[in-house]
Amino acid sequence: MCWTLLAMFIIDRYFSRHMIQRPRGTRDFGPEEMEVRKHFEEIMCQEALLHGFREIYTPIFEHTELFTLKSGPGVVEEIYAFQDKGGREICLRPELTASVMRFFLGDLTNLPRPLKMFYFGQCFRYERPQAGRYREFFQFGAEVIGNPTPETDAEVIGLAAAILERTGLKDYRIRVGHIGILREMLAEAGVQGDAALPILQKLDKKAYPEAEELMVQAGMSSDAIHQIVEVTKVTGPVSILDSREGPAADYIRQVCEILLSMGFSNLSVDLGVVRGLAYYTGMVFEVDAPKLGAEKQICGGGSYSLSELFGGEKVFSTGFAIGFDRTLLALQTEGVEFVPPGVTAYVVPVSDSVRTKGFEVVSMLRRAGISADIDIMRRGVGKSLKHAASLKARYSVIIGEKELESESVTLRNMSSGEQSLVKMDELVARFKE
Amino acid sequence: MCWTLLAMFIIDRYFSRHMIQRPRGTRDFGPEEMEVRKHFEEIMCQEALLHGFREIYTPIFEHTELFTLKSGPGVVEEIYAFQDKGGREICLRPELTASVMRFFLGDLTNLPRPLKMFYFGQCFRYERPQAGRYREFFQFGAEVIGNPTPETDAEVIGLAAAILERTGLKDYRIRVGHIGILREMLAEAGVQGDAALPILQKLDKKAYPEAEELMVQAGMSSDAIHQIVEVTKVTGPVSILDSREGPAADYIRQVCEILLSMGFSNLSVDLGVVRGLAYYTGMVFEVDAPKLGAEKQICGGGSYSLSELFGGEKVFSTGFAIGFDRTLLALQTEGVEFVPPGVTAYVVPVSDSVRTKGFEVVSMLRRAGISADIDIMRRGVGKSLKHAASLKARYSVIIGEKELESESVTLRNMSSGEQSLVKMDELVARFKE
Repeated sequence: MCWTLLAMFIIDRYFSRHMIQRPRGTRDFGPEEMEVRKHFEEIMCQEALLHGFREIYTPIFEHTELFTLKSGPGVVEEIYAFQDKGGREICLRPELTASVMRFFLGDLTNLPRPLKMFYFGQCFRYERPQAGRYREFFQFGAEVIGNPTPETDAEVIGLAAAILERTGLKDYRIRVGHIGILREMLAEAGVQGDAALPILQKLDKKAYPEAEELMVQAGMSSDAIHQIVEVTKVTGPVSILDSREGPAADYIRQVCEILLSMGFSNLSVDLGVVRGLAYYTGMVFEVDAPKLGAEKQICGGGSYSLSELFGGEKVFSTGFAIGFDRTLLALQTEGVEFVPPGVTAYVVPVSDSVRTKGFEVVSMLRRAGISADIDIMRRGVGKSLKHAASLKARYSVIIGEKELESESVTLRNMSSGEQSLVKMDELVARFKE
Repeated sequence: MCWTLLAMFIIDRYFSRHMIQRPRGTRDFGPEEMEVRKHFEEIMCQEALLHGFREIYTPIFEHTELFTLKSGPGVVEEIYAFQDKGGREICLRPELTASVMRFFLGDLTNLPRPLKMFYFGQCFRYERPQAGRYREFFQFGAEVIGNPTPETDAEVIGLAAAILERTGLKDYRIRVGHIGILREMLAEAGVQGDAALPILQKLDKKAYPEAEELMVQAGMSSDAIHQIVEVTKVTGPVSILDSREGPAADYIRQVCEILLSMGFSNLSVDLGVVRGLAYYTGMVFEVDAPKLGAEKQICGGGSYSLSELFGGEKVFSTGFAIGFDRTLLALQTEGVEFVPPGVTAYVVPVSDSVRTKGFEVVSMLRRAGISADIDIMRRGVGKSLKHAASLKARYSVIIGEKELESESVTLRNMSSGEQSLVKMDELVARFKE
């Protein structure tokens, strides 16, 4: 007997190895998991709509040039880039900001501003899959194209904060900085424009020895270097800005004041938030969920200037992206659960002669907006009720010949087991009680 | 002056030509269009949930083998197939049934049956873009894995019918057939199994001369050929089945009876529905929207057997896919409109001193579930009200210093222009009236 099982196991493994697998680093989502994902996706989209943001869509693949222009030619190594049959260099999008900006510059420049947009979709990167990092992953994001006001930046951070609040996540912190502070200090020390970028990137990664080396090479005094390193360590409540002067500090003070007036207290200032990408111009922010450990960042954004890179007019933009998968992971780590509701009614015809009547009933319920399912396997009542329970149906509607004579059906409460006879024309109302 | 305009035009064209374009055959959707699309996507998903179907997700790309196994090696010519950096043959999915079946066989075989699943997502094909056909397009689909009962097939057709009904589409027809009828007749005439496929494919396309040639080559009598051609022309109300005998005719008669009992009268029998693919095994159906002309099919499906092709156990499946883009086109042709609601409230701070208060108010409204937006451009009241109108805001909430002294704001009905003073703590309730 044991050998038979072993043989079955081997055959099973053999065939399963020969079955087609999903591509490495991608995921399928079954009904249970998908209900949870959809729930949180809808929370994010609903919250964006409540904030006056409107959804847009851009395609899954783009011309590769869009991303090399934004992030440099090296990005090709990290993305799904390929040639289509017409010899065009295209790729699966690694993120959505560049696509949104392309769309805006090509088609949306005439819309009234500010333009408040959001998106939800898949992104792709070619890298070694590891815990919480996938080759196909999901991002929610928002972009505002408008005016360089603290109000604009506060609206953007406020949306990210409101979304995380609505998911039920508790342990997270929003860290707001301003890349202008470091840029101003570097410029004063003689390091201007693009020359500042490698230094900022090292500071972003808290790689101080490398950053200091670069600053020495750039001819900066040890005093200036020390001051810059110290600034990246400035972190704390909004009040730490009280001692700082200058337009950048003034700016984030105003942003934070607005956020506090909106009721988001989960806020700190962190001048070490740099986001080592050339196109960030002012306010930058990140959100961490510390429980996630090394991969704790769940959201990042700031104000940026990408439009000129893509050959368009200069516009002021602020945006962010939330890593949907990591946010779900953070929620799971905190034990925030969503229990999807089962179907409301499961219709059980007791015999072949009443099956058609069963479909009449199930159709009546659905047309009334009541979620309803019906046995299609020609099972007996016992097995059907068992299936109804596995679907977490709240009620079963048992259709029997005898009851039909008085235009009635049996309504069974699936949690209490209580049963009662209900007139067919009162059935819908019973579910609306 | 005219020359200046011309010069501006040339410069504009020059730069716009140098701006990065979206890939050929793909689309971006702006806020207006996206709201319409989302509305109908949600109708489809909601209706599926009402019917006890549950959503699943599979990745955007798959191993190319999945689709060559299903549709033959020729399919590679029509899809976005490429090698990833690891040398794997992958492709953007051209449809979703194969992915669902892969997912089912790999991970879902232990779930209680019937398994009723639906999906909504992008599909891709590499072909010359033309009216209503895109390289990135959208499909809604559903699959049931269960038992070979007419009830199962009726549930599947019933979902497609209910969805179309709920969209508001009026002019469409559901044509139900059974591939078994022609297969049985061909087998009787000596053409069995795979040999029947090329003939069925010609009959599917109503390419009668070619079909007849193939049947002559297969050694069929002219009488048998005539009878088969006649059957493919049998089309009409369900009652035309009254004169037909045999298990296949019995089967679709039962399917149609259930659908009629569910209230779907928009139904005809069409034995010419063949769907020229090897894996269809029984009931087949199509839905046309005649107003679309040549490209009028908006939905197709049937019962099929794919699981063995993919190395799995034999299972009974029935499914369909709705072409989302074509369905939207059909709705548009019929003038079915969806007018998205604008934001409920637009908050207008009259001066800098009350901006922070404005954010407090907008945040209060949003937390109460009222969609609200606020000026972030530091505009004057007049311009702000104009912007509110462009957003189709139903109300403006004007925050003035004087009114704040009595803890009040001015509520302006944007369609009537009526204004009234409202106490701050009564504001939320006013929107819930």
